[in-house]
Amino acid sequence: MRCWILTIGDELINGLRVDTNTAWLAARLSDLGVEVERAVSLGDEEGAIRDALAGALAGTDLVIVSGGLGPTQDDRTKPAVAAHFGVGMTRIPEIEEAVRTFFATRGRSITPVNLDQALVPDGFAWHINPRGTAPGLLKEQDGRLLFVLPGVPGEMRAFWHDWLEPLLQDRLGDRHIIRRRWFQTTGIGESDLFNRVGGLEDLAPTITLAYLPSAWGVALYVTGKGEDAPAVEAALAQAEARIVAGSGDWFFARGDVTLAEHLAGQLRGRGLHLAVAESCTGGLLADTLTNVPGASEWLDRTWVTYSNRSKTEELGVPAELIAAQGAVSEPVARAMAEGARQQSGSDFALATTGIAGPTGGTPEKPVGLVYLACAGPAGTVVRRYLQGENGRRYNKQRAAANALDLLRRLVEKRNPFQGGWESPG
Amino acid sequence: MRCWILTIGDELINGLRVDTNTAWLAARLSDLGVEVERAVSLGDEEGAIRDALAGALAGTDLVIVSGGLGPTQDDRTKPAVAAHFGVGMTRIPEIEEAVRTFFATRGRSITPVNLDQALVPDGFAWHINPRGTAPGLLKEQDGRLLFVLPGVPGEMRAFWHDWLEPLLQDRLGDRHIIRRRWFQTTGIGESDLFNRVGGLEDLAPTITLAYLPSAWGVALYVTGKGEDAPAVEAALAQAEARIVAGSGDWFFARGDVTLAEHLAGQLRGRGLHLAVAESCTGGLLADTLTNVPGASEWLDRTWVTYSNRSKTEELGVPAELIAAQGAVSEPVARAMAEGARQQSGSDFALATTGIAGPTGGTPEKPVGLVYLACAGPAGTVVRRYLQGENGRRYNKQRAAANALDLLRRLVEKRNPFQGGWESPG
Repeated sequence: MRCWILTIGDELINGLRVDTNTAWLAARLSDLGVEVERAVSLGDEEGAIRDALAGALAGTDLVIVSGGLGPTQDDRTKPAVAAHFGVGMTRIPEIEEAVRTFFATRGRSITPVNLDQALVPDGFAWHINPRGTAPGLLKEQDGRLLFVLPGVPGEMRAFWHDWLEPLLQDRLGDRHIIRRRWFQTTGIGESDLFNRVGGLEDLAPTITLAYLPSAWGVALYVTGKGEDAPAVEAALAQAEARIVAGSGDWFFARGDVTLAEHLAGQLRGRGLHLAVAESCTGGLLADTLTNVPGASEWLDRTWVTYSNRSKTEELGVPAELIAAQGAVSEPVARAMAEGARQQSGSDFALATTGIAGPTGGTPEKPVGLVYLACAGPAGTVVRRYLQGENGRRYNKQRAAANALDLLRRLVEKRNPFQGGWESPG
Repeated sequence: MRCWILTIGDELINGLRVDTNTAWLAARLSDLGVEVERAVSLGDEEGAIRDALAGALAGTDLVIVSGGLGPTQDDRTKPAVAAHFGVGMTRIPEIEEAVRTFFATRGRSITPVNLDQALVPDGFAWHINPRGTAPGLLKEQDGRLLFVLPGVPGEMRAFWHDWLEPLLQDRLGDRHIIRRRWFQTTGIGESDLFNRVGGLEDLAPTITLAYLPSAWGVALYVTGKGEDAPAVEAALAQAEARIVAGSGDWFFARGDVTLAEHLAGQLRGRGLHLAVAESCTGGLLADTLTNVPGASEWLDRTWVTYSNRSKTEELGVPAELIAAQGAVSEPVARAMAEGARQQSGSDFALATTGIAGPTGGTPEKPVGLVYLACAGPAGTVVRRYLQGENGRRYNKQRAAANALDLLRRLVEKRNPFQGGWESPG
């Protein structure tokens, strides 16, 4: 089954909003074996919507429209759909009742325009909105399916889970065998990783491999397709063996797992506690780690010691050391990590100090220079990175990723002097 | 001038990547008075690209294609463009030289496939890539412009600034008068803000107003359009007066300014220093504040005191107080803020403690319960929020936004007990 996605809304084509619905829907459709061929974004203009709708319905088996179903005159999707099929609209009492209930339970007053959400183009099936007021609409014609959904991401997603996914699964039956696997690496750029792992084109049945770089590492996303489930699984097992062997100590996890989630599991599983002393990463490490539910089980405390005085007062870094070596230096990074470990009584402590930019660099200590330290039961490792002038946020992210990788390597007893990105992949 | 944007890449239609280039380009085009009518995302498939290109060139004056210009066989945009116009490709020595230089200065080895970046469809103008290897391409025909750019956001943006923007400004001349203004609010939901400010439809010449909610507040984006610059400016001044009066103390800044950037200016301008003691926000406040360049001028230090022991050891919160009231309580929030202020010697100190979820809630202290405290020269203010069960990341963000708003109101001597979002707008 092939699909077009139409997303409707002025905000999507005037630069005020990034369209995230397309990627979200495409990922779910892909999991069902439905291939999205084209995604079109349009403004709230009836003629343009009709034109795009006609093109989409002529070209494919499944069309999903999202957006432009709000209650006001700005929203033109429903009139455009009705005009395309040359039908009128009828008020559906069940929808009107649901809209009234929606407002009543929230203590909000209702206006006639809200009740017009109950108007449904003739010949369309409808589905009550589990999270809002605009119903979902469905037209089946000549074996083609047209869904019309609200554009609010939470409402659109609720419709997917409640309505589209089971309906499409039922239509597709079991003909498509598609299996996917995630493999996570960090500390190595995309092209270097490709040189170690390569493509997997020679495996059969069809295996495709995508390299997906983010600030935290490169994820490998493997898709196996075929007629026969055991054959697909066997090819995926071969793919996995090559990926794991090729990516060596840069590989850290199977599955759709972040580096912080993986570390959380490693620390919790070993009963270890962590403290973090940040300077150049400015709280990004703490924020990333505390995004993992239950982080309080293994994260004891963290500091952002921005001022020199706070490095001395909180972490016991000698003021003379800072005066002699500068706050961005190997011995200060070491003293921050060791001070954080001692002060907290944690098993491991990470420290970061560097020049995040855009100002503050010198010829000897340029923007992007970072020292990362990890103090642990077996001693302290300090590493130096030249990250380049890639912007303040980039420098924070790259330093945080390299710091988590350093901790991972020490906790997992891998080589801590390998890995570490210095510049954009 | 009207425009279509085509973004090319399998990752855009299989759910692996959100397309951010469209919104970025659309915002810049909109600033020039160019209206984007349609944005289409396609996979790396030559037939589909040719088909979309034909539709786009038939429908509009300006087409911008981004993506699918990589050096490998996967990337099909250049062959599709050449096939559409029925032309061959010629190797351009200047581009080849630029590609060789790009690799040489990075110490990377070059392959023949990289040198194929120098192939340009006949009849196209070209522009050297300031950040990568794929050149930008331009075809002018019958008054229509077709730009072909790489999809890597940094490269695409560099082409915009270096090439497209000046070229388009030159073509458009001064015929369009479009002026835009940003106004920033925080601590009030979109619908409550709308009830206070309303629309601005009655102003002339045409004024449009968009409400743009984010985790940090609601931005108002006002566009004035007309033939006559002084008249547009006069209408914008009326719009501004209404917005500023209507949004009251919830308004905090003009311009495209974040809440953290605004606070940075307020603190720096008054010579004030800040410390932050975080529990439930887990470093998000520190990360947000340190994203502002020069934050070290006014941010002294921060803590994430996750464990009870760290609240006592770092901030001097009495262990008996935590035992009696619980870590998530009014007196503990107060003691955290006052301890952070005293320990750091800062003028102001913020503290957060709450149940971020998804677990850890009880009937008395449910997920989403947050206490925020701000200690300052005139004393300490503590506020309690029920943010609801909206997810861990949401709870961190909302608590961080409310904390920054509390600090803003105290620094600017506004009512600190007004404002504060409890649930999603």
